[in-house]
Amino acid sequence: MSSALIVDIHTHVYPRSYMDMLRSRKAVPYVHDPVNATPRLIILSSDDDPSIPLDERGRPVDPSYWDINVKLAFMRRHGINCSVISLANPWLDFLEPEEAQTWAERINDDLEETCARVNQAVDPDNTRSLHEKETLFAFGALPLSAPRADIVVNEIKRLKTLPHLRGVIMGTSGLGNGLDDPALDPVWGALQETDSLLFLHPHYGLPDEAFGGAEVMNRYGHVLPLALGFPLETTIAVTRMLLAGVFDRFPGLKILLAHSGGTLPFLAGRIESCIHHERKFVANGGNVPGPQRSVWDVLQTNIYLDAVVYGTAGLKAAVTAAGGADRLMFGTDHPFFPPLDTSEDAEWPSVTTNYKAIHAAFDTEKEAVGAILGGNAARILNLK
Amino acid sequence: MSSALIVDIHTHVYPRSYMDMLRSRKAVPYVHDPVNATPRLIILSSDDDPSIPLDERGRPVDPSYWDINVKLAFMRRHGINCSVISLANPWLDFLEPEEAQTWAERINDDLEETCARVNQAVDPDNTRSLHEKETLFAFGALPLSAPRADIVVNEIKRLKTLPHLRGVIMGTSGLGNGLDDPALDPVWGALQETDSLLFLHPHYGLPDEAFGGAEVMNRYGHVLPLALGFPLETTIAVTRMLLAGVFDRFPGLKILLAHSGGTLPFLAGRIESCIHHERKFVANGGNVPGPQRSVWDVLQTNIYLDAVVYGTAGLKAAVTAAGGADRLMFGTDHPFFPPLDTSEDAEWPSVTTNYKAIHAAFDTEKEAVGAILGGNAARILNLK
Repeated sequence: MSSALIVDIHTHVYPRSYMDMLRSRKAVPYVHDPVNATPRLIILSSDDDPSIPLDERGRPVDPSYWDINVKLAFMRRHGINCSVISLANPWLDFLEPEEAQTWAERINDDLEETCARVNQAVDPDNTRSLHEKETLFAFGALPLSAPRADIVVNEIKRLKTLPHLRGVIMGTSGLGNGLDDPALDPVWGALQETDSLLFLHPHYGLPDEAFGGAEVMNRYGHVLPLALGFPLETTIAVTRMLLAGVFDRFPGLKILLAHSGGTLPFLAGRIESCIHHERKFVANGGNVPGPQRSVWDVLQTNIYLDAVVYGTAGLKAAVTAAGGADRLMFGTDHPFFPPLDTSEDAEWPSVTTNYKAIHAAFDTEKEAVGAILGGNAARILNLK
Repeated sequence: MSSALIVDIHTHVYPRSYMDMLRSRKAVPYVHDPVNATPRLIILSSDDDPSIPLDERGRPVDPSYWDINVKLAFMRRHGINCSVISLANPWLDFLEPEEAQTWAERINDDLEETCARVNQAVDPDNTRSLHEKETLFAFGALPLSAPRADIVVNEIKRLKTLPHLRGVIMGTSGLGNGLDDPALDPVWGALQETDSLLFLHPHYGLPDEAFGGAEVMNRYGHVLPLALGFPLETTIAVTRMLLAGVFDRFPGLKILLAHSGGTLPFLAGRIESCIHHERKFVANGGNVPGPQRSVWDVLQTNIYLDAVVYGTAGLKAAVTAAGGADRLMFGTDHPFFPPLDTSEDAEWPSVTTNYKAIHAAFDTEKEAVGAILGGNAARILNLK
C-alpha cells in the first residue's frame, strides 16, 4: 500500500519451545493436541470451560503462531519490512518461581537466534536498507514470577547485550499485585537505567461480572472480553501506575501501550479531572501522595502508542493525546484476528482496517503517515 | 464565554421528595444526617464501608443537589441558558416493585412542576428567546423495578403529555438483567414509538476486582471507579445492546450516551473488528444471530453524545465516530465535581475544562462550537 518503510511493532510469536512447555501443562495456560486435528490453545480461564469438550476448548492454533516463515510470508503479503516480534500472552507470568529465570533466558535467546538467523539469510552482508527487505527484531520476556526482583533486573540488563532485542513485553500483573506495586521499583529503575522500552500488553481482561456474568459474556463469543476487557485492563494498569506516582519516581520510563493505550487517550481528560477533584490526595488536603505530573505530560513524555485501534476516531484521540503523530507506531497483532475464510494469499481485514485508518486520519499529512507506518519505530527503537 | 445559546443536557437533581425517601432508608442508597453537619449521601456500595464512621461515609451533599435556585445561580455563573435536568443515579432502580410506579409519577410530576414554575417566573409571557434567559426542561425517570413492563411503557407515554419533559434517563441495569434483556423490547418499542430520547447514564461501575480489589481501589479515592468504571459501564451496556441486535429491531431508537459514550467512540473500531472475527455469529457460520448493522452506522444514526469528556482528545474521537459535530451536546454533570475550594462565585474547573476543550477542538469551525454548546440540543430536544 506504500513504498515507505513499514514496521510492525505489535506482532506475536509462541516459539516452539514455549508451545512444548504449554503442551506439558494441564492447567491454564495449556495446549491440547486433538487426534488428527489442529492443536487447541487455552489461555483464558473463561475458555477452560469443563462443559466444552477438550477438543473444542480454547482456540485452534496453526503454524502462524510458531513458524517464523509464516510470519515472513504475512509480512511480504502486507508490505511490512520489519517486525518487532514479542512473546504472546500470557508470557511467563504463570511459571513456578524456580523455573522463571531459565525460561526467560531460553525464550529470549530463542528470539535473538531467530532474528539473527532470518536477518542473516535475507541480507547476508547487511547492505540493503530496512525498507528493501524483511527484517526481524524482538521484545524480550521477563521472569516476573522469579523469587527475587534482582533476577528480573538482571534479565533486563542481559537483554541489552543481545543485538536484536529492543525492549521487553509485560502484562498488567507485574509481580502479581499490579503495576502500582512498590516492589516493582527495581524493575522500573532497571528499565529506566538501561533505556529499555516496555511494551505493556493486556491478558487478564475484566471479571466476568463486569459483563453481566459468564453466561452473558459467552453469549457473544470473545467480543466483550477482547473488544472491551482487554483495552480496559491496559487502561486500569497504566492509571494505577500514574496514581501511585511511578512516573514521578521514574520520569525516564518509556512505555508502549498496546491497542493505542486501551482507552487512555479517550479517558485521559476524565482521569485528570478526577485526580484534581480527589480529596484523598495531598494536593487537595488529603493524606495520599497522589500523582505529581499530569496525565497529559506523561502521555507526551513517557508513553508511546501502537496504531492498532481499527478506526480514525480512536486514532485521532491517540494522536491528540500524544501531542502529535511522532509517538504512534503501526502494528498488526498478528497472528491474532486472521480472516475467517483462509485463502492463502488474501490480505487480512484486521490489518487493512488499520492501514486505511492511518491514511484516512492524515489524508493531508503524508509525513505523519510515514512516521506512524515505520519512521517512528525506526527512530524510537533504533532499527537499522 | 460566548454569546451563543448554551444548553446543559447533563445536569442532575435529587428533588426534595427523593432526598426524603433516601433519608427513610438504611441500605444503599440512603441519606444519613449527622448532627450539626452536612447530610451524607451513600449511593455506591463501595462507599457503605462499615469500617468508616457513618458521619463520614459517602459524600457530603449540600443544597446544590436539591435547591433549584442553586442550579439557576450555577447556570448564570457559567453562561448556561438552558438546563435539561435529570434525576441523578441511582434513579428509581432500587425501589420495591409495588412502589415504583408511584415514585416515578411523583418524581416526574415534581420535575415538570419545577420547570414550569421556574420558566414562568423567569419569563411570564414567554416572549424572550432561549439565549436571553435561564430555562429548564427535564428528562423523566422510569419505574424499571415495576412488576410489569407495561407500567414502564405507560410512564413513557405519560411523559409525552408533560410539556417540559424531553425524554427519559436510565441506568445500565434495565429491568435488572442489563440492556440486552429481551424483556426490555416493549420499553424500546415505546421509546421508538413516542420518539423519546433515552439518556443512558452509568451508576454501577465495575466489580472491585477489576481494579485489583477494594483495597487498591480505595487507595486512590474515587478516581478509578469514577474515571474508568463509569465510562466502561456505559460502553459495556451499549455494546451488549448492539450485540443483542436491539438497534436492528428498533432502528428508530435515540440514545444519548453520558460522558461522550463512555469509551464507545474510541473502541468502536475494535468492537466492529471483533464482531467481524467472531465465529459464533451467523454471518460467520455460527448460530448466534449477532448484530446486523455496523457500530459506525448505529453511532451515526441512533446515538447522541454529550461533550463531557474533559479534553480535545476524547472530543475528536467523539466527533469523528459521530460523523460530525451535529450529534454532540454540551453538559456539565452538575452538581457533581464541584471545585474543592468553594468560593461562592468561582467558575467550576470541571465546566471550564469542557468549554475549553470544545473551543480548542474546533478552533477554525465556529459553527461546530455553537452547535455543540447549544444549537444541537435545541434542535434535537425541540427546546423553545
